Amino acid sequence: MDNSLAEKLTARSSGISLYGLAPPKRATPSDELKDIVAQQVARLQSLSIDGLIVYDIQDEATRISEPRPFPFLPTIDPTTYAHEHLGRLATPKIVYRCVNQDTPESFVEWLKDQEAKKSTPLSVLVGTPSQHARAGVSLTDAYALARQYAPRLLLGGISIAERHGKSANEHERILAKTEKGCRFFVTQAVYDVTSTKSLLSDYAVAVREKGAVPMPIILTFAPCGSMKTLSFMKWLGIAFPRWLENELRLADNPLSASLDLCEQIFVEIWDYARDKGIPVGVNVESVSIRKSEIEASVELLKRLHRRMGASANEI
Amino acid sequence: MDNSLAEKLTARSSGISLYGLAPPKRATPSDELKDIVAQQVARLQSLSIDGLIVYDIQDEATRISEPRPFPFLPTIDPTTYAHEHLGRLATPKIVYRCVNQDTPESFVEWLKDQEAKKSTPLSVLVGTPSQHARAGVSLTDAYALARQYAPRLLLGGISIAERHGKSANEHERILAKTEKGCRFFVTQAVYDVTSTKSLLSDYAVAVREKGAVPMPIILTFAPCGSMKTLSFMKWLGIAFPRWLENELRLADNPLSASLDLCEQIFVEIWDYARDKGIPVGVNVESVSIRKSEIEASVELLKRLHRRMGASANEI
Repeated sequence: MDNSLAEKLTARSSGISLYGLAPPKRATPSDELKDIVAQQVARLQSLSIDGLIVYDIQDEATRISEPRPFPFLPTIDPTTYAHEHLGRLATPKIVYRCVNQDTPESFVEWLKDQEAKKSTPLSVLVGTPSQHARAGVSLTDAYALARQYAPRLLLGGISIAERHGKSANEHERILAKTEKGCRFFVTQAVYDVTSTKSLLSDYAVAVREKGAVPMPIILTFAPCGSMKTLSFMKWLGIAFPRWLENELRLADNPLSASLDLCEQIFVEIWDYARDKGIPVGVNVESVSIRKSEIEASVELLKRLHRRMGASANEI
Repeated sequence: MDNSLAEKLTARSSGISLYGLAPPKRATPSDELKDIVAQQVARLQSLSIDGLIVYDIQDEATRISEPRPFPFLPTIDPTTYAHEHLGRLATPKIVYRCVNQDTPESFVEWLKDQEAKKSTPLSVLVGTPSQHARAGVSLTDAYALARQYAPRLLLGGISIAERHGKSANEHERILAKTEKGCRFFVTQAVYDVTSTKSLLSDYAVAVREKGAVPMPIILTFAPCGSMKTLSFMKWLGIAFPRWLENELRLADNPLSASLDLCEQIFVEIWDYARDKGIPVGVNVESVSIRKSEIEASVELLKRLHRRMGASANEI
């Protein structure tokens, strides 16, 4: 197999490191785009990661009535960006795809393209951002089509601990998506330890009761370097405990404070997940395009990578 | 001064240790009552505590529609129990008083009795359990009467972090009660780190903004040895994060697990409060009258006492 990420995911390994990014805006002039690609390739080549996540950014206006702190601008198609623009980057790519933008025909065509790839194709299918949004292809139908047209496609699902804090059934969604073919799960950015631990706890209990095995849970972390980034992350649905928001708000250097907090949060969840026998990995991203926050995300990835390495050596 | 607890509270010391108990039921036969008192005196004399809290148990049927897991039975008046039945116990006592059970006359009479005591009288005044309950004397009036008739009375207030989790203004209640004369605050049993840290965070910020000083916050801890105790604690309004409830529910020995969890929670909050400059102490109680849970509460107090001592020596 030419894809160690797929191997690690299939083996349900702990300690997988991913980096996540969104493709540039579709309107980016081609010279500028070339520069962005060159920078990203250089940055990503310097990282010891198992894979790269390329997001599919949707306009989530149907999910939330509050205005989006940053305007929504359509991006380059993530599959195109991952496999063409970043094609020379050898790192395996996990391509997100929002299936509500698809027709059954366009989705099947995409599946066939994935199936034809040399190395194991990896993807996370994303459903509608809210119940009020139009669904081109439903997530359930998408999973069925994937089984039929792209059996080689290694599928992941998204998992939102904040939802678990409210309805306490996110672990059941993970189990249901696993039955439909998902082999790993990626969270949104974690700043709320409690809901994440509660999700992992209920998941561990449910897996044991079913006599099943837990799938790898990839925890996303993202630096937060300004109050504008904080408000955007909150808009995205990321929960910040009040005390932690105060820490960021009052820090002399919020960016540096956020890295320390993310590291603390990670260590607490990592220890807890190991105790419960759930394989955990990380995905680091910057939700902002500010250079300082992107650089901080690279620093954060290195720190979490070290933490996982140090801990793995303890076994 | 003959009362080192009053001194420590007035000096806003960290590391105060209290034990909390409710008086026996009013209907307890006198022989049995004598035995209970003898046992409690023996147990409390063996503990190195700064003080004893004697609760005033109310029927809180107006606060919550769910039936009380244990029946409400009226207890011996806490002032009588503290100063007469437990009179030979030299430990300073903090007597709770639910002022909604008072008339202005009965409350003033009680205040005059407190003022006449040799050692510094200590009390926590408790208001109505809900907005729907009848208020004999309002808490605001009670504080005003206390200033007038018992200026020596060292007053504390109750503080509920779970309320802060919802309305984010519990720190303002602390500040308002401080203006009315409260010099320390006692929480309900802490199983939810996040709301407690958030309360302390907002309190620290508000105190700094006012140029004021933080009052000691006494964190209550209580073992939870059975699902019946858990349901009673939830009925009392104590929040349990979902993962922590799972830990207790699935533990081979929930009582022992609860002690470990309480100790972890305490250490996290203790470190956080020290970082924020807020003096913190502990109050340990058993909400159940089962012997094993009472013994566990004594064990827990010793553990937390050691933690505070070890940490105090590090300064």
